[in-house]
Amino acid sequence: MMNKVRAASAPAPLKTGVKNAVILGATGYTGQELVSLLSRHPGFVVAAATSESEAGARVPGTSLSYTPAAEVDLGAADVVFCCLPHGESGVWAKRAADAGAVAIDLSSDLRAPGSGAVYGLPELWRDEIRGARLIANPGCYPTGVLLGLAPAIAGGLVDHSRATVIDAASGVTGAGRGAKRDLLFGEVAEDYRAYGVGNLHRHVPEMRVGLTRLSETSPQFVFTPHLLPVRRGILETMYVPLTQDVSAAEAVRLWSDFYAAEPFVEVCASELPSLRNVVNRNVVSLGFSAVDEVESPMLIVVAAFDNLVKGASGQALQNANLILGFEESLGLPA
Amino acid sequence: MMNKVRAASAPAPLKTGVKNAVILGATGYTGQELVSLLSRHPGFVVAAATSESEAGARVPGTSLSYTPAAEVDLGAADVVFCCLPHGESGVWAKRAADAGAVAIDLSSDLRAPGSGAVYGLPELWRDEIRGARLIANPGCYPTGVLLGLAPAIAGGLVDHSRATVIDAASGVTGAGRGAKRDLLFGEVAEDYRAYGVGNLHRHVPEMRVGLTRLSETSPQFVFTPHLLPVRRGILETMYVPLTQDVSAAEAVRLWSDFYAAEPFVEVCASELPSLRNVVNRNVVSLGFSAVDEVESPMLIVVAAFDNLVKGASGQALQNANLILGFEESLGLPA
Amino acid sequence: MMNKVRAASAPAPLKTGVKNAVILGATGYTGQELVSLLSRHPGFVVAAATSESEAGARVPGTSLSYTPAAEVDLGAADVVFCCLPHGESGVWAKRAADAGAVAIDLSSDLRAPGSGAVYGLPELWRDEIRGARLIANPGCYPTGVLLGLAPAIAGGLVDHSRATVIDAASGVTGAGRGAKRDLLFGEVAEDYRAYGVGNLHRHVPEMRVGLTRLSETSPQFVFTPHLLPVRRGILETMYVPLTQDVSAAEAVRLWSDFYAAEPFVEVCASELPSLRNVVNRNVVSLGFSAVDEVESPMLIVVAAFDNLVKGASGQALQNANLILGFEESLGLPA
Amino acid sequence: MMNKVRAASAPAPLKTGVKNAVILGATGYTGQELVSLLSRHPGFVVAAATSESEAGARVPGTSLSYTPAAEVDLGAADVVFCCLPHGESGVWAKRAADAGAVAIDLSSDLRAPGSGAVYGLPELWRDEIRGARLIANPGCYPTGVLLGLAPAIAGGLVDHSRATVIDAASGVTGAGRGAKRDLLFGEVAEDYRAYGVGNLHRHVPEMRVGLTRLSETSPQFVFTPHLLPVRRGILETMYVPLTQDVSAAEAVRLWSDFYAAEPFVEVCASELPSLRNVVNRNVVSLGFSAVDEVESPMLIVVAAFDNLVKGASGQALQNANLILGFEESLGLPA
Repeated sequence: MMNKVRAASAPAPLKTGVKNAVILGATGYTGQELVSLLSRHPGFVVAAATSESEAGARVPGTSLSYTPAAEVDLGAADVVFCCLPHGESGVWAKRAADAGAVAIDLSSDLRAPGSGAVYGLPELWRDEIRGARLIANPGCYPTGVLLGLAPAIAGGLVDHSRATVIDAASGVTGAGRGAKRDLLFGEVAEDYRAYGVGNLHRHVPEMRVGLTRLSETSPQFVFTPHLLPVRRGILETMYVPLTQDVSAAEAVRLWSDFYAAEPFVEVCASELPSLRNVVNRNVVSLGFSAVDEVESPMLIVVAAFDNLVKGASGQALQNANLILGFEESLGLPA
Repeated sequence: MMNKVRAASAPAPLKTGVKNAVILGATGYTGQELVSLLSRHPGFVVAAATSESEAGARVPGTSLSYTPAAEVDLGAADVVFCCLPHGESGVWAKRAADAGAVAIDLSSDLRAPGSGAVYGLPELWRDEIRGARLIANPGCYPTGVLLGLAPAIAGGLVDHSRATVIDAASGVTGAGRGAKRDLLFGEVAEDYRAYGVGNLHRHVPEMRVGLTRLSETSPQFVFTPHLLPVRRGILETMYVPLTQDVSAAEAVRLWSDFYAAEPFVEVCASELPSLRNVVNRNVVSLGFSAVDEVESPMLIVVAAFDNLVKGASGQALQNANLILGFEESLGLPA
Repeated sequence: MMNKVRAASAPAPLKTGVKNAVILGATGYTGQELVSLLSRHPGFVVAAATSESEAGARVPGTSLSYTPAAEVDLGAADVVFCCLPHGESGVWAKRAADAGAVAIDLSSDLRAPGSGAVYGLPELWRDEIRGARLIANPGCYPTGVLLGLAPAIAGGLVDHSRATVIDAASGVTGAGRGAKRDLLFGEVAEDYRAYGVGNLHRHVPEMRVGLTRLSETSPQFVFTPHLLPVRRGILETMYVPLTQDVSAAEAVRLWSDFYAAEPFVEVCASELPSLRNVVNRNVVSLGFSAVDEVESPMLIVVAAFDNLVKGASGQALQNANLILGFEESLGLPA
Repeated sequence: MMNKVRAASAPAPLKTGVKNAVILGATGYTGQELVSLLSRHPGFVVAAATSESEAGARVPGTSLSYTPAAEVDLGAADVVFCCLPHGESGVWAKRAADAGAVAIDLSSDLRAPGSGAVYGLPELWRDEIRGARLIANPGCYPTGVLLGLAPAIAGGLVDHSRATVIDAASGVTGAGRGAKRDLLFGEVAEDYRAYGVGNLHRHVPEMRVGLTRLSETSPQFVFTPHLLPVRRGILETMYVPLTQDVSAAEAVRLWSDFYAAEPFVEVCASELPSLRNVVNRNVVSLGFSAVDEVESPMLIVVAAFDNLVKGASGQALQNANLILGFEESLGLPA
């Protein structure tokens, strides 16, 4: 049903030297995270980190200064990570790919089919990614949804006549580092609220594309994100209608088998995942609960992950490793 | 379908003087909140506030000292609020009622049918409460669920062949003030997690009883609470299967009509409720969203309220007002 | 030494009717707090609440809509609270005073001597305030510093040859509700930092004027504010060089005596004040500790208060009560 | 004046193999941090991690299970980290040293002179540590105070006739992971308070010993800690009386020179340190500000560090590296 190749080993490195990485938009949260991850990665050197507003200032934790994007020679880069605002980032990614670099766009600009980019979720579509030069890095919410639901869909367990309810909560860094009143500490602390309710969030079409690709049918789901007063982390509680009863223990077996070769998907056998256990790690952690007291079979799948790591910059680096011939897990905290 | 009397006015006061209130277990969060609410209520004086561990210490914001419970003359009280731990509180409430006081138990001890107590959710069962002497004050989560779903059930809108998904998040004061490692700041801050998953939370039977009473059928639902890193407040996002399409605007009209006479239920017409808007108020705030992209009709109902006020101590005082002949809203911040 | 009149009772009300209040800049934190305080005050009605960016939107918790400032008839107001940005607010306050209203400016614009406004710290300079029409409402940090140190200065206890160290921490609402990156939840949570170090904070000159007025000499002090990851509240830990040893118990007596008639200064006898105990109250809470192990006498004075209430909007309302003939404490949570 | 050897390089490794580490008390915050640090250290393997209450449970992030302390063969360990409660930990450390292991006690038990242990602050007393078998790892607050003040004392800049004011704030993990009501999220969030005021904190004698050792005179200081609503991090704002004026720029030069060879002391030239910049790093970050407006010279020194890393477990590992012949910075995040 799926083209997923689970056991394929990483190819031999294409080149042996250290690669040049460029980060476009390095002062936002995903850009900062990439600076941090790359500085600990043995195979990359950050050749340039761009910022228009902070040009000339020192990049924290490095000996670099921020450069305006226009001054960067994209053609000299091995990989360009585009962490610019939506609407702007995809253009730069295409420019970087045209200049000969591997380009990885962390915005939503290139995630729709027909964009010319390959959707970069390695655990599900690794083979396509390997040969790509232009990657649409997945959105944070879809990463957890697709990895959480893929084994159920692949196993033919999902009852597509009913809707899956996906109730999600995200820390504030998921909304970026732009100065917005709604994201002030004085507004967010001691608050909790839903937003984009009624499938209005911009990640909904991306989820739909991914789920359709996995299931070969049009999936039904309702996605409701909430804003959490924490800095990092997403927790998604998914209520999945099934064609047959599946116990939590059976789910652990099924999901563990599906992801047996994956270092960045963690299946929790005994307790459910929580934000605290996944922060700063490039991991999606999954847990399960049966629901006995309803007439039609249902399984609860809980996914937790760090929106800035496996939900963005860590996954971008995972894609870069894969394409540039490094071991896929190199430099990534599991 | 229901015995709810919406427009009934409060009866004339039975007695004119100030009433004596006793708070058993006054150092916990619900006890503290009652001390605070009663100190601003013109009709009550706190005659005693008990604590075993802090006996003799001053009750903050008052001129009282904490008394051991055994030293309190329950028979001299007009009303006794029992805020003791589950398992202990109900016994004291019965003792207080036997001694002649109106007894309001904030624990879960007396909420099951056959306990001898009247379930104290005034907006739905006000008439029974008026004449009662022993009240089981509702649990925090069930308060929002029952008030949020009652208009849909009463209107015959709920499709009982499918399960309602209730995804809830609560601030930590909902778990009490006992010293538990899991509730330390160092554990809760920057975390978010589900607990009691799979309908295991102790409020599930209470919800089932209430929903069954409203619907005259056995309701199907899945309830998943999560622990939020905030001090106060509960937000419940409910995915309600309907027998027909209902738009958000229609829902606003239906719920507004149902609660037209209720000062403590707030229907949000334009935006969804959030914790920040309900903290320190004796209100359940409700908002709605349609979901167009699923095959079978569904309405999202969001309920927000302060777990210590409308979810506990404020509601207890509302019950006391009702029984003792005060205006139901007296001394309660709306 | 001081012109303070401690025991003077409030005058009889000048007029008996409800007064019209206008709030200029009602969407900021101090403006919101005034809306909330005035809505519970029996003597005022909010006649207008202004906002340019949210003009037409409903003012939360009221039946009003925001008006652009230019559309408000200042002459029809009994009192105008100016909560606009620094640099703009003072101009509007003077305009309101010229139009015949009592004008209370919450910005720093009119706090310097020679501004034409009376400095509105009632506990120290009540007599001047009573007859004023234009008030410079004190800054948050100076309110705690001046009330905390006044009894020591008045009692001739301060050794002016040494510097008082004032180490302060404030919640983020003290920095206003403007959208600034440094105040995002993602930046402030889990952080703590000093700012304006080296007497560079804009409240330092205001403190110097006030302390000089109290001491009739040029005071020496070092003021270091820090940004706290909380919404509300200021705590100031002051290390005061004394001319003689003063025990904590003696300090409690001296300060209690000095503020015996003041409802909004709270002297803690047994424990030190904390933010939790003062939030949402119009109170400065003071506590004391001796330091035995240093050669020259020193007393630690800790002041805690809510920066939005006694540190801003509550104090503004206290001034309005005083000027307009209401009981000074009317409508103010003590 | 001091025995500090700044430029000494680390000795050649004594043995080449991987060393066995034992952690006594591995479920507390410092124990957890050591598990985490050691799991990423190439020279150590965690041979045992003890817990009485969680014996048998898996140690998170490892393949180990917790063992009761009594079952551990201390003599087989190369190094034993004692993270047990005060009063208990020192006894175990001595037992481990007697059994032949290098013992590093993270409690306060052995920090007083005459305990038989060497005080483990490498940047100041490295030579003594190298040959030691029993180490008293410094308290968190004293680490920042001693490293922050040492250059001023060594340079003869401190005016010992006046008292240094040390105003400090710590995240809650500094108080341990024991279940105490005062450390509940519901108590700590949105609060800030001083404790141990008047030089009553148990770290004061330890600071006094260290400062006396550095200055060869009895130092005068006042230390006031506060409890911050953050998980990790300490910030200490120190007001240091000087014998002569020192500008911030001069201080940067002096402190930079003093710590030129130290990888774990960071001198900030342009901005002051903050918690966010030091969390999860084995670093004390120092910044400076002059105060012009006081009569007698004063310098403000701000120290920030992670209480669980450089303030406890990271420093313990630094000591272990030093004693066991690893490069001092091995496995430590700078």
